[in-house]
Amino acid sequence: MRGEAVYYCGNRSLRIEAVTVQPPGPDEVQISVGFCGICGTDLLIYRGRMDERVGKRRIIGHEMSGRIAALGERVEGMAVGAPVVVRPLAPCGQCHPCRTGKNRLCHSLKVFGVDLEGSMQQLWNVPARAVHRLPDGLALAHAALVEPLAVAVRDVRRARVAPGEDVLVIGGGPIGLLVALVARKAGGAVTVSEVNPHRAQLAEELGFRVINPRRANLAAEVAGATHGKGADVVFEASGNQAGLDAMTEAAAVNGRICIVGMHLDSPRLDLHRVIMRELEIIGSRAYEAEDFERAIELLREGIAAERIITEMRRLGDVGEAFRDLCENPASIKTLIVVNGAST
Amino acid sequence: MRGEAVYYCGNRSLRIEAVTVQPPGPDEVQISVGFCGICGTDLLIYRGRMDERVGKRRIIGHEMSGRIAALGERVEGMAVGAPVVVRPLAPCGQCHPCRTGKNRLCHSLKVFGVDLEGSMQQLWNVPARAVHRLPDGLALAHAALVEPLAVAVRDVRRARVAPGEDVLVIGGGPIGLLVALVARKAGGAVTVSEVNPHRAQLAEELGFRVINPRRANLAAEVAGATHGKGADVVFEASGNQAGLDAMTEAAAVNGRICIVGMHLDSPRLDLHRVIMRELEIIGSRAYEAEDFERAIELLREGIAAERIITEMRRLGDVGEAFRDLCENPASIKTLIVVNGAST
Repeated sequence: MRGEAVYYCGNRSLRIEAVTVQPPGPDEVQISVGFCGICGTDLLIYRGRMDERVGKRRIIGHEMSGRIAALGERVEGMAVGAPVVVRPLAPCGQCHPCRTGKNRLCHSLKVFGVDLEGSMQQLWNVPARAVHRLPDGLALAHAALVEPLAVAVRDVRRARVAPGEDVLVIGGGPIGLLVALVARKAGGAVTVSEVNPHRAQLAEELGFRVINPRRANLAAEVAGATHGKGADVVFEASGNQAGLDAMTEAAAVNGRICIVGMHLDSPRLDLHRVIMRELEIIGSRAYEAEDFERAIELLREGIAAERIITEMRRLGDVGEAFRDLCENPASIKTLIVVNGAST
Repeated sequence: MRGEAVYYCGNRSLRIEAVTVQPPGPDEVQISVGFCGICGTDLLIYRGRMDERVGKRRIIGHEMSGRIAALGERVEGMAVGAPVVVRPLAPCGQCHPCRTGKNRLCHSLKVFGVDLEGSMQQLWNVPARAVHRLPDGLALAHAALVEPLAVAVRDVRRARVAPGEDVLVIGGGPIGLLVALVARKAGGAVTVSEVNPHRAQLAEELGFRVINPRRANLAAEVAGATHGKGADVVFEASGNQAGLDAMTEAAAVNGRICIVGMHLDSPRLDLHRVIMRELEIIGSRAYEAEDFERAIELLREGIAAERIITEMRRLGDVGEAFRDLCENPASIKTLIVVNGAST
């Protein structure tokens, strides 16, 4: 069989190629990919920031939804045509984290679409253990958000958001907004800090209090709104130094700060404040199966995550879609329609 | 009444002066100070690093033991002659942390010997609520370690050290060694990282595994000794960038890192590692009454904390004692005998 696939080929170059697809091997499932989201990591790859890990010929994509097209040997409990998503992790299964139920923290974790061929292809063979069945009635396009939503679920879990807590999300990009939605679902009173007016407006439409940290003193605003206490939980989802400076400043005494944004260099951190306020800085990485299941449940219940989808593009327009995400400040989340027949 | 007091007067200048002592006011206790330890904070003050906060005429000292010399009005349940230590914090009592039982995190916390007159004086008036009674049979000199030991107790509490966990203490100074002792008491298997051979030897004599990070790769050694896992808990007690780099490198997946050493600037931190290994960075500040009581109990049980006392000096030799601590690598903890009659 033949199908089209999107290859990253180095420095902002994407190529669509027709590839020959093998049937699924034992314990594998072949998926007809319906939709594939473009993630911040995909943009890092596109800009050449991850070449060392990704190489210059890789089928990218790891946020997807689709339908089962074929089953390999030994696969049970799945049916052709069923709507599914894929948890795009390939843990080694041998290291200490893997042996203690923490696949996401595998010492040699491989990620589909980064270290292995990803989901931006029409027919994708993946291990059956990575497949999650979707409930009937959930729009397949919206289900392409399960993966980033599962990231948000894990972040909120790691930060232990409790009902009634004051939560600050720094950065209203796709992950920041999803974290805000999940934190509110967990009972938090959520404020979003964002400088981009398009993202700020969406955050407001979603019902969050929004602060533009270029127009107001973020920490002072948060303190003022919490009787001088500060935020019980802060999510740093901006990935920049200003966000890192603000997170320690805005946190309450004994506040928890969850690092969501990627920081490839070692940035500066106000450790004096960490001591003086007894803060906790919490790393969070990927997700486990339970986070995927929770994300599916939240989507089914209607958490409004689909509001972050700002564009749907045909597979043939993938290059333009990437350029737009890099340049158009109004873009938040773009979905690529990989296989119209499966949507 | 007259007594002698040690004033810090700016840039490495200490002066011993005879001062007139008032009787204790209502709710106050007058203490005849027996011993006063010299702390890392005292050395920072001595070097002029904290002038903005301390000023240039301050009676320093906050690690002490002594006996009650007089009682002010309304003080009950205390007797002249009783051996005591003082928890040297003056919280405001009004702010959010104070109102929620976290005096140590008071937004305008004042510390005796830093913001207020300290314990390096023969007769010291302090609020009765700050006084802790010592058990009979505990050597008064050793009790001067209650304050730094209470810091270690709080650190180990914040880091949630559990029996059987692999613990790494980076920096074998006074606080690092006390943290190591308390972490072992909590059931941790403790390794100490230290470059100073005198401190390394003492750590070995106290029964800890010791690694010199200039001679061996600390993270690799810790990984090797833990079947590739790394340290479940790391205490950063060196206060320098090398320690901060090593702490994220040596920690296990989901490891907890407690920041013990002071960092007045904002240093660099490997946040990528914090995410990839889902680490937790935990600030810890001072202590509450319960930590003081636990430290007293540990000293009474015989935790060997007194082994860190390397010198006892007369009040008249205080200047020399400070110089030695700055210059002599064999010095760890020096106690000043403030009032020989009360020891």
